Amino acid sequence: VSTDIIPDGYRDLLERPLFGHLATTRPDGSPQVNPMWFVFDGTHLRFTHTTRRAKHRNITADPRVAFSIHDPDQPYRYLEVRGKVVEVVPDPEGEFFVSLAKRYGEDWPAPPDKADRVVYVVSVEKTSKQ
Amino acid sequence: VSTDIIPDGYRDLLERPLFGHLATTRPDGSPQVNPMWFVFDGTHLRFTHTTRRAKHRNITADPRVAFSIHDPDQPYRYLEVRGKVVEVVPDPEGEFFVSLAKRYGEDWPAPPDKADRVVYVVSVEKTSKQ
Repeated sequence: VSTDIIPDGYRDLLERPLFGHLATTRPDGSPQVNPMWFVFDGTHLRFTHTTRRAKHRNITADPRVAFSIHDPDQPYRYLEVRGKVVEVVPDPEGEFFVSLAKRYGEDWPAPPDKADRVVYVVSVEKTSKQ
Repeated sequence: VSTDIIPDGYRDLLERPLFGHLATTRPDGSPQVNPMWFVFDGTHLRFTHTTRRAKHRNITADPRVAFSIHDPDQPYRYLEVRGKVVEVVPDPEGEFFVSLAKRYGEDWPAPPDKADRVVYVVSVEKTSKQ
């Protein structure tokens, strides 16, 4: 079970509403990275995204991702998670977006681009930490 | 000049002692990302690293990197910088490490692994922001 992959004492970094940085690989092989909201259900990480941006083209061509979260209260403490986008779930009403916004303390309506919204479901395969 | 590439109003993200997340590509094409100290001289970003870790193998095989910095005070504000490791400068006395630590408020001696320490000099070629 992937939960065993999370190192002891680092699980809070996946449970707190922190901003992590999700890296993907562009079709030309170069890296791409930007901050993202996420939620962890104990097995998978979930992200909200749209099908209209470069990251979506990247993960469609190569589903492997890496995700870096550091602890803002202890900045030398971090976790890197490596995995794959194993499923892309349509979110046409933006419901997942709204629930994820709530986790981050934002009371936001469904976004204007909700028709293009999707949920990236990401497996947790390996981790690194410091 | 690369300074023109930095979008108006985002330069502070490169000047403040923030933690950014540096993404590289592994030899198998999958992404790797972790938080890093950095300093920007107006043209290049500089990072301290050692030649003994996976990231060094990655940038030796493919020098293209991406770097994501978000503003802890306004977390939806971020800058992604894309560029290349254009030079790897030996830092055998750990002097660059010590000066970079100081920038982050740490009064640290040269690290135990100073013999393997290097400075990554990274060009600034493209940026994305939000």
